[in-house]
Amino acid sequence: MSYFTKRYHPPGTSPGTLVTEGQEEDIRIQLLDYTPDEFQELTLEHPSECQPYLERNSITWVHVEGVVHAETVRALGQLFGLHPLALEDVINTGQRPKADSYGEQLFVVMNLPTVNEQGRIETEQVSLFLGEGFLISFHRGDSRPFEPVVQRLRKHSGKIRERKADYLLYALLDVTIDRGFPVLEFYSEYIEELEDELLENPGKETLSRIHQLKRELLMLRRMLWPQREVINNLIREEQPQIRAETQPYLRDCYDHTIQIIDLIEVYREMTSSMMDVYLSSVSNRMNEVMKVLTVIATTFIPLTFIVGVYGMNFSGDSPWAMPELNWYYGYPLVWLVMILVTGGMIIYFKRRNWF
Amino acid sequence: MSYFTKRYHPPGTSPGTLVTEGQEEDIRIQLLDYTPDEFQELTLEHPSECQPYLERNSITWVHVEGVVHAETVRALGQLFGLHPLALEDVINTGQRPKADSYGEQLFVVMNLPTVNEQGRIETEQVSLFLGEGFLISFHRGDSRPFEPVVQRLRKHSGKIRERKADYLLYALLDVTIDRGFPVLEFYSEYIEELEDELLENPGKETLSRIHQLKRELLMLRRMLWPQREVINNLIREEQPQIRAETQPYLRDCYDHTIQIIDLIEVYREMTSSMMDVYLSSVSNRMNEVMKVLTVIATTFIPLTFIVGVYGMNFSGDSPWAMPELNWYYGYPLVWLVMILVTGGMIIYFKRRNWF
Amino acid sequence: MSYFTKRYHPPGTSPGTLVTEGQEEDIRIQLLDYTPDEFQELTLEHPSECQPYLERNSITWVHVEGVVHAETVRALGQLFGLHPLALEDVINTGQRPKADSYGEQLFVVMNLPTVNEQGRIETEQVSLFLGEGFLISFHRGDSRPFEPVVQRLRKHSGKIRERKADYLLYALLDVTIDRGFPVLEFYSEYIEELEDELLENPGKETLSRIHQLKRELLMLRRMLWPQREVINNLIREEQPQIRAETQPYLRDCYDHTIQIIDLIEVYREMTSSMMDVYLSSVSNRMNEVMKVLTVIATTFIPLTFIVGVYGMNFSGDSPWAMPELNWYYGYPLVWLVMILVTGGMIIYFKRRNWF
Amino acid sequence: MSYFTKRYHPPGTSPGTLVTEGQEEDIRIQLLDYTPDEFQELTLEHPSECQPYLERNSITWVHVEGVVHAETVRALGQLFGLHPLALEDVINTGQRPKADSYGEQLFVVMNLPTVNEQGRIETEQVSLFLGEGFLISFHRGDSRPFEPVVQRLRKHSGKIRERKADYLLYALLDVTIDRGFPVLEFYSEYIEELEDELLENPGKETLSRIHQLKRELLMLRRMLWPQREVINNLIREEQPQIRAETQPYLRDCYDHTIQIIDLIEVYREMTSSMMDVYLSSVSNRMNEVMKVLTVIATTFIPLTFIVGVYGMNFSGDSPWAMPELNWYYGYPLVWLVMILVTGGMIIYFKRRNWF
Amino acid sequence: MSYFTKRYHPPGTSPGTLVTEGQEEDIRIQLLDYTPDEFQELTLEHPSECQPYLERNSITWVHVEGVVHAETVRALGQLFGLHPLALEDVINTGQRPKADSYGEQLFVVMNLPTVNEQGRIETEQVSLFLGEGFLISFHRGDSRPFEPVVQRLRKHSGKIRERKADYLLYALLDVTIDRGFPVLEFYSEYIEELEDELLENPGKETLSRIHQLKRELLMLRRMLWPQREVINNLIREEQPQIRAETQPYLRDCYDHTIQIIDLIEVYREMTSSMMDVYLSSVSNRMNEVMKVLTVIATTFIPLTFIVGVYGMNFSGDSPWAMPELNWYYGYPLVWLVMILVTGGMIIYFKRRNWF
Repeated sequence: MSYFTKRYHPPGTSPGTLVTEGQEEDIRIQLLDYTPDEFQELTLEHPSECQPYLERNSITWVHVEGVVHAETVRALGQLFGLHPLALEDVINTGQRPKADSYGEQLFVVMNLPTVNEQGRIETEQVSLFLGEGFLISFHRGDSRPFEPVVQRLRKHSGKIRERKADYLLYALLDVTIDRGFPVLEFYSEYIEELEDELLENPGKETLSRIHQLKRELLMLRRMLWPQREVINNLIREEQPQIRAETQPYLRDCYDHTIQIIDLIEVYREMTSSMMDVYLSSVSNRMNEVMKVLTVIATTFIPLTFIVGVYGMNFSGDSPWAMPELNWYYGYPLVWLVMILVTGGMIIYFKRRNWF
Repeated sequence: MSYFTKRYHPPGTSPGTLVTEGQEEDIRIQLLDYTPDEFQELTLEHPSECQPYLERNSITWVHVEGVVHAETVRALGQLFGLHPLALEDVINTGQRPKADSYGEQLFVVMNLPTVNEQGRIETEQVSLFLGEGFLISFHRGDSRPFEPVVQRLRKHSGKIRERKADYLLYALLDVTIDRGFPVLEFYSEYIEELEDELLENPGKETLSRIHQLKRELLMLRRMLWPQREVINNLIREEQPQIRAETQPYLRDCYDHTIQIIDLIEVYREMTSSMMDVYLSSVSNRMNEVMKVLTVIATTFIPLTFIVGVYGMNFSGDSPWAMPELNWYYGYPLVWLVMILVTGGMIIYFKRRNWF
Repeated sequence: MSYFTKRYHPPGTSPGTLVTEGQEEDIRIQLLDYTPDEFQELTLEHPSECQPYLERNSITWVHVEGVVHAETVRALGQLFGLHPLALEDVINTGQRPKADSYGEQLFVVMNLPTVNEQGRIETEQVSLFLGEGFLISFHRGDSRPFEPVVQRLRKHSGKIRERKADYLLYALLDVTIDRGFPVLEFYSEYIEELEDELLENPGKETLSRIHQLKRELLMLRRMLWPQREVINNLIREEQPQIRAETQPYLRDCYDHTIQIIDLIEVYREMTSSMMDVYLSSVSNRMNEVMKVLTVIATTFIPLTFIVGVYGMNFSGDSPWAMPELNWYYGYPLVWLVMILVTGGMIIYFKRRNWF
Repeated sequence: MSYFTKRYHPPGTSPGTLVTEGQEEDIRIQLLDYTPDEFQELTLEHPSECQPYLERNSITWVHVEGVVHAETVRALGQLFGLHPLALEDVINTGQRPKADSYGEQLFVVMNLPTVNEQGRIETEQVSLFLGEGFLISFHRGDSRPFEPVVQRLRKHSGKIRERKADYLLYALLDVTIDRGFPVLEFYSEYIEELEDELLENPGKETLSRIHQLKRELLMLRRMLWPQREVINNLIREEQPQIRAETQPYLRDCYDHTIQIIDLIEVYREMTSSMMDVYLSSVSNRMNEVMKVLTVIATTFIPLTFIVGVYGMNFSGDSPWAMPELNWYYGYPLVWLVMILVTGGMIIYFKRRNWF
Repeated sequence: MSYFTKRYHPPGTSPGTLVTEGQEEDIRIQLLDYTPDEFQELTLEHPSECQPYLERNSITWVHVEGVVHAETVRALGQLFGLHPLALEDVINTGQRPKADSYGEQLFVVMNLPTVNEQGRIETEQVSLFLGEGFLISFHRGDSRPFEPVVQRLRKHSGKIRERKADYLLYALLDVTIDRGFPVLEFYSEYIEELEDELLENPGKETLSRIHQLKRELLMLRRMLWPQREVINNLIREEQPQIRAETQPYLRDCYDHTIQIIDLIEVYREMTSSMMDVYLSSVSNRMNEVMKVLTVIATTFIPLTFIVGVYGMNFSGDSPWAMPELNWYYGYPLVWLVMILVTGGMIIYFKRRNWF
């Protein structure tokens, strides 16, 4: 994940301008229309096919999966009367999570975290419009997060079909938020692995891994932190679109957002601590290296000096000219001295706990 | 304690789904029913045995100890009319402490910290439902924390039997919170030990111990920090289930939660400081090592050079060819020079306070 | 950008004193007057030429580009009834962003961030007066940020000409704020470059670059942080000059200010982490250097000792006088010993993963 | 001061349980009864002797100095109608400062900081009950902090005898808080000493002293920080026991608590900075050591090599066999080379500013 | 500036006690009495000379410069009815900035920062009493900060003489606050100097300078931070002494206090970063030193070993006894080997970018 992930128009562009780069790809428009008793599901070719379901007294859920083209968005916007500023945010992904109320409609942007194949974290934007009797959702990414909700609708499991569109909104928010748990579980394991590596065998890559982890957690926090505020707004500000009976469910969502943020903070602090541990480990290992050098060097340097002395070529006839060389036991004596020096050194190092 | 301790359903699961992994183990359902004058205590085989006590005008406390099975929870839920979202939190342990009001009932989740046999911190979830005339508690763990309260009820000590169920709630919250004190006392001693180790004889394990401590304190804070907010909610938000006469007691609980959090913060800051001290200690010791190497090496290297000079084989007939070798006092003179050099070095090192 | 960029009068100067240093340069006064149907654009020689447009029932936008002279400001101030304290802030650039309400007028100061030719960040002050039917803007800098808005007015694109002066204010605020996005994108790339440099080949300049980056981000935050509060004030405090229909647009601006601040915080944290990584890298490289020294020195020092031994000149006639020198296989034996010692060393270093 | 200073009952103990360990020692109960015109002072044997003073229309101050026994506290509690939870806090010292209102009575706990003989900080708990016409104070420690107030009452100096019991409360709070100033002055000097030591001659003990200081400041902050909130509560929450005319005096107290906390924060930040400075100093000194080693070693190692060359025993008859040895000026030439090498080294080191 | 600058009475002293140490020095009492039309200025011998000006319907400003004696303060206090607690704060300088309302009077304490001759920061206390029709100011220090305001009154420049005493209060607060700007400009330059020193040639004094700077900024923040709150109180709390027309001016003051605090925070963060940079620089330089040592040592140590080999005295008659010594090209061959080894080393070091 790059640091700067936001798509934006050149400064000064008219607000509500809808422009998409390149071709629309892989777009899939799914329509689900249900009452407690009935359930219809179809894939649309064009947004205008929603028209007939608009007037019916049922809950209509239009889900758009993929990189959306400006036209599609504009068409949906006109059909359901969505605000152009909101539509702009649907297209310019990389938004901060938010909940905005445009008259009778509620517009919610969330970020769904996933782990991609390289084991890197990514977030996929989820945009939700809640109106009277309908919900429109946009999701850009590969993870098909809403499939379980579709299943529950299909199978009439739980009470989801008996509730209104605001409960559907809750269900989608709940999925989006709860997708954070597997991601955090993934990180939990990664951090524990990194801690083991750090304490046992830290290398140069460990450092870059910690830095990378710090960066990802920071980005993740930036993406998920505002979600708490979003859900809190939905609960506190008494949005007319949210029924009182849905409140306890949103409160549950709120708890989950807090748990996720709490954990991210824990991870972040541990990552900072790992950086400190790393630095200490490097110093520790340098200490080891230094000790080896010092033990060997300080043991042998005096010995080398001693043998150097008796390598001198003073000879002449003077009785002062290295008489030791001619002593009967001169050579063994030198060895004795050297063994004593070495022994003294070893005792000294032992006392200092150097090996 | 792993970083990720929360149990959760796969994202998209219907809210209020009750699933338990594996077999129900070691479950024990205890029922205590009391008025100021009467006291009954029995162990239930099945939740339905509570039925006869429900209508009586007494306080009924049902305590469930152990890893609960979905069935038991569901049965209790139906008997006492508990909310499915709350029941889900009872089963999916690892929750954040919270107090939620579901209509006439109050649902409180707390975390009880304990030190396990390995000297590691763990938290055990305590879930409490307070309703009119009854209290249901769940605890998962081995520590039997509520035994003293059962004793007080049995022996009619204090005023506990004269008060209502909200006072019982207080008594249980009080035990749960106060279990933090021995844990913090344990840490206090551990930190002081670690500080001594750090300043006297820091090793590689010291580093990993500090990191481990940091991690545990972080987890502990995450588990206990929200308890302050929980108790505060019970006091401030004028829960109808809490009588005015119980307020001063909860205020006392609140004081305890703050004292615990204060201490955890103190411990955390000291642990951070210990990390800094560790790094400085390692550097300090490297300094020592370097000084030894430097003193020995810089003393002997010039001497070795000197003896090297007179090991050269310039001879020939030139009067310039190392005439010193033939001086009468050549050899002692070399020793004199070497002693002077060594003396100079020693004075230099002494002045620099190197040994 | 220097740390201290604020222009200020000597302490004790009368409030509202208007003094400009040096000559007025490059000043350009542009007047745009429009209704949904009409549009006029002219460049003024002197502020007094605004007079005829004041009474008309149209939106009048006076834009002053360049380093303004006290006279010009004073003349405009008298024409439009602007408060002297506000005029002082127009001249003494380097202000903190703020929104002040002076009776019927609203005075807004913003900072527009740009990247100059040296790749350094600068901010240019934008001062805006909003009154009934007119807007006066001052901008000091080279970047002509409001050109796209002028274009939209000229071409009647979007709804800008159908709205009132408060929408024009929004349009200008929007441009000013959105100019932060390219700047942040620029930084995003710079940080990623620096991270690569840091992990691959950190040098002395890397350190000074990180410090410089930290400084720029700090200054940028100081300049942009208050903008969030400014926009929030315009939304929350129900300024009479801002129409209800402009509120959603300002809310959009507010989102952008938060996104910008969020990113600056992310950058700042990553920069701090880079400082830590740098220190660890330096230690890491010192470790490498030390290992090379230690491997070479500890391998050869014992060998040098050994060859030193057999360089001694013990000879005499004693059978104890270095008999090894006369052994038949003496010399190859010494080599054998030396090869064994070296082999032992290599095995030891391999085991310690030193090379 | 140990990290864990709180006395607590085993979790689950009945609230309001009064238990003291060991014997009551050194207890001294002082009773002062005064009106503007009269003043009585006596030392009580038993709390019940207060009885006659209770009904009188005067201010009665009962001061208990020393480690109080449960009986004494219980007796006073019954006489004056004090709440058992408050009495528990009097006995279980190590409380967090707090102000609790129990019906008509106000219960305040404060911590009085002192420097003991070892130059270590300690805090002594002060507990105060304010009721209509009486004040009861408990103090455990050796410092007799309230003597100056007793003096002022005795000598009728200031207006203390003309005011009510709430003014007496203020006077005692004021003394308790102001005892922080000499303690902070003590620390100010200690920190400045430590800074000098740090920059001039940092040793191993300096590190442990900084860590110790950090710990004490942290504990002190924990003990004093809540006092600000306590005094603020007395001012803001319009306690009925506090008269309006006493408010300005409490506001003065409040200022002092803030000044004390401000200073503790300043000290804490400086202590953190000292830790950084220490680490840098250690590195600095290692640098010095390394430079000495490097200068000596890199100067002499090449020289030793050179003299080693001419210590080789190539002789034979080959004209290639070290002909230098037979040059007329061979030996002086070697010296010349060595002097040139040394000179080059010295110039190199000088340029690098190494000595 | 020492850490502990507050003057205080011994704990337990009666509140409102006025004691000054030593002799009154250099005191100068200035009285200025003005209406829009009249202006009188005189220097008083004794406070009682104010008497005649009290009853007049004009603005009376009494300014006391210097170290005030208790008598003078008491006399002024009686004349103008000032509260004893406020008077105590005038004498016991080193107060925290604050604004207290005593009935009809407003008492404001501010700290005026100055740079003394040694280039060290100091703060001078300014105490201001605002009452109906009069203002009394105390300033202790050498900097005569209010001279420009006196000038404006004398010369009738600006509108100062047409406004009431609250505008005079504003004018004095404005001067006091704005004196922070030159101080911060001074620091800005100092920090930039220090940064250059840090990156180019960091020495031991650099470290102590950074620490000193940190300390001064911390003290400055402590002295100036509360001023923001003071001015905010004057604006928000609707003090009756402050007229509505003075509010915009105070809002301007408020902006300045925030700008000053913002900058201090920026400086503080940069100083922290400088500490990190310092540590990295020291490590960097150690790296350089180590590289030089390693390059020289690892190049020459093997060479020294080689020449040592051929310094051995194996001779005897064995054909294994160092036959190399007798080879025709033995000596040049050794040189060749040594040159190859050296070349290999150089290539190795070049590849590692070590020089």
